[in-house]
Amino acid sequence: MTVALLSIGTELTRGEIVNTNASWLASELTAVGFTVNTSDTVDDDLDRIVAALHRLAETHPLVISTGGLGPTTDDLTALAAARAGGVELVRDESTLLAIRRRVEARGKTMNAGHEKQADVPANSEILPNSAGTAPGFAIRLRNATVYFLPGVPREMKTMFAEQVLPRIRSSAPNNTHQFRLRTYGLGESVIGGRLEGIEEAYPGITLGYRVHFPEVDVKVHARGATQSIARDLAAQATAKVRERLASVLYGEGDDAFPDVVGRTVRARGWRLALSESCTGGMIAHLLTSYPASDYFVGGAVTYANSAKTRLLGVSEDTLRGHGAVSAEVAAEMAEGARRLCEVDVALSVTGIAGPTGGTATKPVGLVYWAVAHPGGTVVRSSVFPGDRQEIRIAAAYAVLDLLRRIAGNLPELSAQEAPAAR
Amino acid sequence: MTVALLSIGTELTRGEIVNTNASWLASELTAVGFTVNTSDTVDDDLDRIVAALHRLAETHPLVISTGGLGPTTDDLTALAAARAGGVELVRDESTLLAIRRRVEARGKTMNAGHEKQADVPANSEILPNSAGTAPGFAIRLRNATVYFLPGVPREMKTMFAEQVLPRIRSSAPNNTHQFRLRTYGLGESVIGGRLEGIEEAYPGITLGYRVHFPEVDVKVHARGATQSIARDLAAQATAKVRERLASVLYGEGDDAFPDVVGRTVRARGWRLALSESCTGGMIAHLLTSYPASDYFVGGAVTYANSAKTRLLGVSEDTLRGHGAVSAEVAAEMAEGARRLCEVDVALSVTGIAGPTGGTATKPVGLVYWAVAHPGGTVVRSSVFPGDRQEIRIAAAYAVLDLLRRIAGNLPELSAQEAPAAR
Repeated sequence: MTVALLSIGTELTRGEIVNTNASWLASELTAVGFTVNTSDTVDDDLDRIVAALHRLAETHPLVISTGGLGPTTDDLTALAAARAGGVELVRDESTLLAIRRRVEARGKTMNAGHEKQADVPANSEILPNSAGTAPGFAIRLRNATVYFLPGVPREMKTMFAEQVLPRIRSSAPNNTHQFRLRTYGLGESVIGGRLEGIEEAYPGITLGYRVHFPEVDVKVHARGATQSIARDLAAQATAKVRERLASVLYGEGDDAFPDVVGRTVRARGWRLALSESCTGGMIAHLLTSYPASDYFVGGAVTYANSAKTRLLGVSEDTLRGHGAVSAEVAAEMAEGARRLCEVDVALSVTGIAGPTGGTATKPVGLVYWAVAHPGGTVVRSSVFPGDRQEIRIAAAYAVLDLLRRIAGNLPELSAQEAPAAR
Repeated sequence: MTVALLSIGTELTRGEIVNTNASWLASELTAVGFTVNTSDTVDDDLDRIVAALHRLAETHPLVISTGGLGPTTDDLTALAAARAGGVELVRDESTLLAIRRRVEARGKTMNAGHEKQADVPANSEILPNSAGTAPGFAIRLRNATVYFLPGVPREMKTMFAEQVLPRIRSSAPNNTHQFRLRTYGLGESVIGGRLEGIEEAYPGITLGYRVHFPEVDVKVHARGATQSIARDLAAQATAKVRERLASVLYGEGDDAFPDVVGRTVRARGWRLALSESCTGGMIAHLLTSYPASDYFVGGAVTYANSAKTRLLGVSEDTLRGHGAVSAEVAAEMAEGARRLCEVDVALSVTGIAGPTGGTATKPVGLVYWAVAHPGGTVVRSSVFPGDRQEIRIAAAYAVLDLLRRIAGNLPELSAQEAPAAR
């Protein structure tokens, strides 16, 4: 069954707040098997709200509206719902009583704004609000059922769970299943190329891609006659996708790349240290965004050459002879961090993130990274495109991926496929 | 002039990502005087995209669409735009050449996905993409101009600023002016209380608040008979807002908190080092997200006690006697980083970010931070509410704000107002 969402509020159309209600509702509805294909937003304008309700109810059997149920004069949703349904707005006495109890329990007295919140379209079904003042309600409009919820996220979520979901759940087709696969190392178009033919080979499968630099998610969405058929289909297609993606696939579902890298190091029984120059703490920050104290010991952020020497023991001769951005310094930084922190493995990054500081032989984007481990020290380099922030993120991911591959005994990507070439 | 936004993508209608593009565009358009009253979202479905384009172009002279311009088969926006306009999709040779140059500059060969991104509706106006591969384009549809931008936020923002805004700006009514003030240190409701009465004192002024933890932006929006009147009105009201916010105001417009802190340190002529435990590199990362090499020397991320001792010279007696999360260790970390890096000022953070590791006397959220500077060492502490990530961000901001106030000779916030009291 398809669902349309309608978000109401000038604070949304003016961009003063981000519409997290719509994404939350869409995600909840998708998870139980509904198909949300439309999610519209209008400002607090009576005619536009009425028009949107008519339009959405014409094309969708289920519409869920949020916002505009509050106490102030710009809250017009109940009036718009009545207008759309061709009925009067009526004051619901039992709702009024509930509001009065709630207001008085807080030591306040009722005002016109409170009373207004008891106004609902005639013949609507009241949806009590256990988390706030304004109730929601449901109406029939054309062939659709339209649910109206408040815009305050906490109240909306509570009311959706308590009032809406129990009423609609049985009408979800429940015949889809989805796997989300997470990749790093190849661009969206290369991944799309690798997965060519899979949709054709598995009818009912749709592949979706989502880029959040520098990662690409692949979604394997299956639709079948029953959920069990959809799940089997999704599993078969996902196995094929996995095979094609090989080690570019680092995880699935809610796996996060830095956490997967950390788990790989932990699984190897290694303790980790690091030394960062151009990434300036980003790698430490990424790793410690997840519990890391059992494998991550610490490290140094060495922006100035003096810090590389004083904190990590990088030799002044190497710095003078090769420059701070060089394979030799990357190696000495990693080895210095490994020695100093007495750990099994250490990584390093040194490069030119820009926007200034590049030269003809060492352009902005040039980055060297190294991993010093019990088997030796591996140094790699690339010239990353993009702005300062992108270069830093690309560098952080490159060295974390090298660490993941060394700790996990995975082959490195070939030069043709490597990150810089995206 | 009224504007409609159209966001295209199944990842949006399924709620897999939050639609930050729509709120960003709405905010930018509102700031220059347009009225956005509709912001619709459809999935990657050709018929629904076409229908939405027709509908929005019928009611709005200006429509801005984002998303669906990528290389894969589920990117249908160009085809839908051609369909809506009743024209063919044509491969634009100069765009193809630009894409080829971009791809080959990265050592890659063109594939079908790359080529597809050069397909645009016949007779459309190409909008070059300086931040990515897929160009945007503009078409006339009914009486509207419709701009199509990619969905990748960075590319969308660049293209809006470089290609769309210069073309549309002159059609904005241009009778509004807005200042954006940036604050850290007080919650939204406390700031709202401080600014009470300003809207009433300056008719035509609307104050807006936007929370992005732990910061609160205050927008002073003025509407007048002409833009010059609106600008004067905005300036007057903003002066009053500044006076009420005092040192809680750290900047305006696009100022970023870590950059402002860095500029304050730089203006003082100081060089900075740092030592981080529970923030795990976040502070270094925040500072070095902006050019910092002229004042930021480096520092240590010392997760394990051994790293605190080995990298920073924190005494084992202090660690044993007071624990790693203590005022004494915070002070020794900051002083150790200051001494070791031979700098004027150093900061430190040590705390329990959770989710585990708390005790009855040292709960999750307890954080000590210190700034060691030429006048001595200042240590502060708080128990921050929230999850691991919120505690880390709160701790990073707290010590950066202490540094900002010390380097800038500003008074500290009173305990009543301090961050933890939010």
